[in-house]
Amino acid sequence: MDTAIDLSDASKALDLANIRFQLILADMFPLNPSIYKPGAVRIPDCDYSLLDWMIREQERFQSLVRRYQSPDEYPFFPDALQEPILQPIHYPQILHPNDVNINGKLKHHYAEHILPAACINYGREERGENQENFGSAATCDVNCLQALSRRIHFGKFVAEAKFQKETERFVDLIKREDRKGIDEAITNAAVEKKVLERLRLKAKTYGTDPSISAGEAEEAAKINVDAVVAMYKDYVIPLTKEVEVDYLMQRLKNTQWE
Amino acid sequence: MDTAIDLSDASKALDLANIRFQLILADMFPLNPSIYKPGAVRIPDCDYSLLDWMIREQERFQSLVRRYQSPDEYPFFPDALQEPILQPIHYPQILHPNDVNINGKLKHHYAEHILPAACINYGREERGENQENFGSAATCDVNCLQALSRRIHFGKFVAEAKFQKETERFVDLIKREDRKGIDEAITNAAVEKKVLERLRLKAKTYGTDPSISAGEAEEAAKINVDAVVAMYKDYVIPLTKEVEVDYLMQRLKNTQWE
Repeated sequence: MDTAIDLSDASKALDLANIRFQLILADMFPLNPSIYKPGAVRIPDCDYSLLDWMIREQERFQSLVRRYQSPDEYPFFPDALQEPILQPIHYPQILHPNDVNINGKLKHHYAEHILPAACINYGREERGENQENFGSAATCDVNCLQALSRRIHFGKFVAEAKFQKETERFVDLIKREDRKGIDEAITNAAVEKKVLERLRLKAKTYGTDPSISAGEAEEAAKINVDAVVAMYKDYVIPLTKEVEVDYLMQRLKNTQWE
Repeated sequence: MDTAIDLSDASKALDLANIRFQLILADMFPLNPSIYKPGAVRIPDCDYSLLDWMIREQERFQSLVRRYQSPDEYPFFPDALQEPILQPIHYPQILHPNDVNINGKLKHHYAEHILPAACINYGREERGENQENFGSAATCDVNCLQALSRRIHFGKFVAEAKFQKETERFVDLIKREDRKGIDEAITNAAVEKKVLERLRLKAKTYGTDPSISAGEAEEAAKINVDAVVAMYKDYVIPLTKEVEVDYLMQRLKNTQWE
């Protein structure tokens, strides 16, 4: 079932780098809690938070160029999507029909945990809000959330590949609705450890200016390596596995979702 | 006149990294010339190229959250801008009133030279168009062009700082409409050389996966260091200097541009 992995192509290899980079951009701003609170920033004829409004409008726009026809893109606001202006693309049907979408949970964790953790590391939470940054900060947040969402929902393809490889084992677990058993079956602790090690090495390399001396580099390290690794360990990996389990739980259903 | 430089704040320090990264993302796609040709991709009720249409719609959307009130952001389609939904911000008036905007020229160079050069380095120009990528490739192009535009128009602040420092010299050159003399006065070959050297070092570090051996790394280098350095040398630096000269040529005018 290598085709599931092939679908990702070259651009997928950059997903991890993209998430790291978008987070670096996003946490250059002071933490602006008003962006994430409905009503805290007044938007005409709208009760949404500024972030929600911006995600929604961005998704409405990008749906026009077929972003959400791609089987690895999932919207935060499915009701905002419009008919694409470009001709439809017929992707090979790799995934079983399903309605798994954990963007709501991702958005919650991002605003409540991931972003504050990244900002605290810079002492930026003490600088207070800066309403001049609201637009740019929220723009970075949207990019960051889209990159995270893509990465996390890619778990569906991983789950499908695992299902194809050990069909009998998974059919049994799914029939018994054994979510814990499925979670154990899809977990490879050694691989997870290796992913985190590689991530730490990359975050360290890319977060350091190579043109300055080692002593200065320590001080000038642009991103907090621990914060990036923690984000993966505590959120990206668990949410990806949640997508995998949710997907597999629907794997035997005949229901045709939209 | 250090305030001109201060305006940039932390996020500006990341401009160079951002441009590099956006270009890496953009050149992961095969070169799709249809994206840049008006009419080649049919858009309902519109004669624009797909790229132009996407820049315009993105600018229309981002103008709502005040992107173009910021004195270091310049639109490609000024006529598309809308009234912001957020309260206006009153930035300190650092620049002399001017109407310098070379985004048209930047866009031309990007589609004709910068992007093809980056893609050729991967042999991607031979892979032919892939209409499935049009939306994602153009989305990357928009991000790349916005990052380049911001960086290049930052030349206005650099020029203002230079004018403040050597006012008499520049007033004389401007009055004689000596563009060549202004260009020479703003040029510091040693600094340019140093910028390119630092850029080469960074492109090399960030374009190499630190978790693989040196031998493999050579082969696996993700970005072509020469292409990135050439883009800066041939386009980013010359266009920035053009902005500086254009700005200074308007520096003594009393006209209040909109």
